[in-house]
Amino acid sequence: MEDKTILSTKNPIIKNIRLLQEKKSARDQQGLFIVEGIRAVSDLKHKKVQTFIATRNINKDAFCKEETQWIEVSENVFSFISDTKTPQGIMAVVYKEQYSLDKLKYKKNSIFLVVENVQDAGNLGTLIRTAYGFGVEAIFLSSSCVDLYNPKVVRATMGVELPIFTNINISDCIHQLKQKDITICVTDLQTDTYLQNCEFNKGVALVVGNEANGVTEQTKELADKKIKIQMQNNLESLNVSIASAICLYQICIGNC
Amino acid sequence: MEDKTILSTKNPIIKNIRLLQEKKSARDQQGLFIVEGIRAVSDLKHKKVQTFIATRNINKDAFCKEETQWIEVSENVFSFISDTKTPQGIMAVVYKEQYSLDKLKYKKNSIFLVVENVQDAGNLGTLIRTAYGFGVEAIFLSSSCVDLYNPKVVRATMGVELPIFTNINISDCIHQLKQKDITICVTDLQTDTYLQNCEFNKGVALVVGNEANGVTEQTKELADKKIKIQMQNNLESLNVSIASAICLYQICIGNC
Repeated sequence: MEDKTILSTKNPIIKNIRLLQEKKSARDQQGLFIVEGIRAVSDLKHKKVQTFIATRNINKDAFCKEETQWIEVSENVFSFISDTKTPQGIMAVVYKEQYSLDKLKYKKNSIFLVVENVQDAGNLGTLIRTAYGFGVEAIFLSSSCVDLYNPKVVRATMGVELPIFTNINISDCIHQLKQKDITICVTDLQTDTYLQNCEFNKGVALVVGNEANGVTEQTKELADKKIKIQMQNNLESLNVSIASAICLYQICIGNC
Repeated sequence: MEDKTILSTKNPIIKNIRLLQEKKSARDQQGLFIVEGIRAVSDLKHKKVQTFIATRNINKDAFCKEETQWIEVSENVFSFISDTKTPQGIMAVVYKEQYSLDKLKYKKNSIFLVVENVQDAGNLGTLIRTAYGFGVEAIFLSSSCVDLYNPKVVRATMGVELPIFTNINISDCIHQLKQKDITICVTDLQTDTYLQNCEFNKGVALVVGNEANGVTEQTKELADKKIKIQMQNNLESLNVSIASAICLYQICIGNC
């Protein structure tokens, strides 16, 4: 495909990229999202790129190995479509990955993470990254979660290679995991069971919830185990990404 | 003291409050910092307030019980000095607390947290809050850390009541803790010792380091124990507040 040069922020391709940065609805409708920055774009590996957009100083050969559309833009245009304060001059329009639930492998000691209604992009990014670090096999995000393809989440999860299912109905998901003999474990401030006293000796799915309200009552009722982290000083609760990380750590060392 | 009303952003008191919001140097020089928002200001408890600043709709009696200066400002002036996008119309100029190292109590199973060169205000806030939740007795911040009185850190640590020592020389601090028979434990990606295999059966100080570079080599050399968190998928490292939380959790359950 021939390279293009675009020098106006009014160009429809440029306008659409800005839409993809800003609007979940545009990302959903087009099945595309934006990855930005030298390291993140270099790290795309198996992901399918639709278009690269770069400023003149970027070396095309370092990024664009196949017959993918390469668009050169002015620094002004790049700033207009960049989500960062100090743009690095390279971004890619990437096809969203579609994972099939049917192909998911359930191993004896698999760990899964189910995320219900987490709203903060920073929290979701940290959650996903930490889950990857603890060998979680797959992540399920409820339809009410912040968008996985939000630029802040994309930045935080750079290099993470793991199936993430979006727009999940939590109740269906839990039923399906239970059928595969996975123990459903929810965090619950009302329980008397401390995390460190739990045994995790087979497949586990950890369910974590919204920043302010935790896991919904409806979802708690579906759980096999309710756990909480032992705390002092009457601190109400830990940040959701901190609490989840501690649970995953404990499940992982009890299970590996 | 008589109440005042200020309607101009050019008033020197207003200009100084903005300085206190924005500049560590101003906070250091004046020994003052800003606490903002209804809940945070209600939560000040034992902290000494120099001045309250509020918009007209705020009920003075709910906040200002003693003979403290109360300044009413216009919404425009409040927005000018507020650090938040949706100001709640109340802030307090607060005296920094001075903790004396000599008065610090070292109990048999005390846990301390030593923070070396953490740069992100969000990370420091989460670290302090989590440490409080795990019953840490005191926190020591190296002089190169982000300012404890940065508005973002102040917001994140609302309600936390625990001695935090700032501008600490890490090496002096570690020597002093060792004299009190406290085990110095650093996070180190190069070690072979996993956190879950460590025993913590007396006082422990956990030392954590900078987001990009971890704990300095110089500080690692002073440690009694070097630990790392067992991870998978070749993830280089966890976020500093996540890693610290997991270490504190493990120390806490091994030590309580």
